Amino acid sequence: MNIPFETLKKEFKRVLLKLSLIEEKAELCAHTFAANSRDGVYSHGLNRFPSFVNTIIEKQVDILAEPAFIERNGLIEIWDGNFGIGIHNATLAMNRAIELAKANGIGLVAMRHTNHWIRGGTYGWQAADAGCIGICFTNTMANMPPWGGKEPRLGNNPLIISVPREDGHIVLDMAMTQFSYGKLQDTDLKGLELPEFGGYDANGNLTKNPSAIIQSRRALPIGFWKGSGLSFMLDILLTAITGGRSTAAINSIVRESGVSQFFLCLHQSNMHQDLIEEIIRYTKSGSPAEPGGEILYPGENTLRKRRESELHGIPVNEKIWNEVLKM
Amino acid sequence: MNIPFETLKKEFKRVLLKLSLIEEKAELCAHTFAANSRDGVYSHGLNRFPSFVNTIIEKQVDILAEPAFIERNGLIEIWDGNFGIGIHNATLAMNRAIELAKANGIGLVAMRHTNHWIRGGTYGWQAADAGCIGICFTNTMANMPPWGGKEPRLGNNPLIISVPREDGHIVLDMAMTQFSYGKLQDTDLKGLELPEFGGYDANGNLTKNPSAIIQSRRALPIGFWKGSGLSFMLDILLTAITGGRSTAAINSIVRESGVSQFFLCLHQSNMHQDLIEEIIRYTKSGSPAEPGGEILYPGENTLRKRRESELHGIPVNEKIWNEVLKM
Repeated sequence: MNIPFETLKKEFKRVLLKLSLIEEKAELCAHTFAANSRDGVYSHGLNRFPSFVNTIIEKQVDILAEPAFIERNGLIEIWDGNFGIGIHNATLAMNRAIELAKANGIGLVAMRHTNHWIRGGTYGWQAADAGCIGICFTNTMANMPPWGGKEPRLGNNPLIISVPREDGHIVLDMAMTQFSYGKLQDTDLKGLELPEFGGYDANGNLTKNPSAIIQSRRALPIGFWKGSGLSFMLDILLTAITGGRSTAAINSIVRESGVSQFFLCLHQSNMHQDLIEEIIRYTKSGSPAEPGGEILYPGENTLRKRRESELHGIPVNEKIWNEVLKM
Repeated sequence: MNIPFETLKKEFKRVLLKLSLIEEKAELCAHTFAANSRDGVYSHGLNRFPSFVNTIIEKQVDILAEPAFIERNGLIEIWDGNFGIGIHNATLAMNRAIELAKANGIGLVAMRHTNHWIRGGTYGWQAADAGCIGICFTNTMANMPPWGGKEPRLGNNPLIISVPREDGHIVLDMAMTQFSYGKLQDTDLKGLELPEFGGYDANGNLTKNPSAIIQSRRALPIGFWKGSGLSFMLDILLTAITGGRSTAAINSIVRESGVSQFFLCLHQSNMHQDLIEEIIRYTKSGSPAEPGGEILYPGENTLRKRRESELHGIPVNEKIWNEVLKM
């Protein structure tokens, strides 16, 4: 079943207004969830909407809160998200980083006490749409063991890097686990194996069996010790600058809340678009690993999905869609 | 065979002065190579010194060149390395980024036309020693296939992130391949297997056999598609900002030369050291994956090796050491 973007957005907005979000926040959140589905990131679009609604109903998110400027350390701006809506906070923070970068070449907004920004790529596209390079990351609750350990002590701490480009921005959006828990559950429900090792089973052996990983809680960091180290560093950076909650602090409370986020933008008038095209051509110039296979740059598939959605509507999970219609 | 730090450094300096490096550059390079061995990074210390000497003899590196300031885009400074000595250029660039960060909270020096900086971690420690957060990365020649491709089109583009800490800085220094070519060769010479999959064999199967990977030239990016994407993005960032050589451009010439590098520093008076200690304690608080195993933070092992070297001297490969003595 395919639904036009505007229909999806309209329903989301109706539900959010009913939950007493002000017009501006309802509009932004509805747009963001619909855009995530439109871009093919279904796990962070329609499929995530009901659990987002729950965080509002259960008052885990303060729908009235506005982010507040705390202090300026040179050109670093520290903001407090006041436990408000993650999408709203992150959008404002990235807008401020864009503004700073356009004035100074660089802008860094570091925010503490905010909430889940849903899909990190949203803010990468936002920066690139404004003509800026965007680099942003967030910490999360512990959902990945550090290298050498058995129990989750690190977040999957997604990292987003985006660069503006005329024929479609280049946007990398990656978490530090090889596969998200959403992907593990999805693969498990379909009775399939993962395409690569995704974690360890209860006996400490690498496995492609999603259910074994869900049970052991030992999801694999990308590149073993390397992704473990990178996830650790992102949490350290966030905490050293914002003074906010680290993954350790987030895990000492019941539910993920009050995470810390970085929004770094770079801007200059000449971004050397011709040289960027050269990199893309060169990267794609090798022979495919599989017959008929393709080499894609980060963000290329997002744009394809977006165009497909614009032509044919957004494929939706009917069960969840009907659930939303009844909200 | 163990050699004191000062003896190693003295020999390196003697050789470099004989090659007509000025006192300041000979001192810096000798110190850096000796420190790399002292920190246990033997591949980038004594073992790398003879090939560094060759780049000077073959005039691949211009020992007389000094980096030049090109332009300021807001607070971004663009420098040209003028194909000089990579260690010298990178040290000056990081010093400038530190200076900018201490004045403005953030400093970014982006350098084009420089040369191999040898061990990236050097500049991470430099930033942290100056009380700054350091983030730096470089591009390289193509030595890793992009995800979905067979031939090398991406560099392994090392990324370094460092955060100052009283009891020992936290420093991550990671390349985007699961194992370096140095590690593959070393493991192959010892007739051993890699501890994890390190690439593909000629038939496109994942393998732990280092010689099969050296032959196929298909080293594995960390986290498959993720490390491939991250490596690509670092090259794009470097090229978009500096206008210098991308991996594509580096590979169109005979030898790796004129690479591009980023040196980003952050500084504020309060780096929340107590919260950083909380993260370290929490990360280490899980049970080890292997009996008797340990969970280490990035940089912890470097500091241990450094202290061992200071106590017992630096273990050296006697063949290479004798080679240097005869230079």
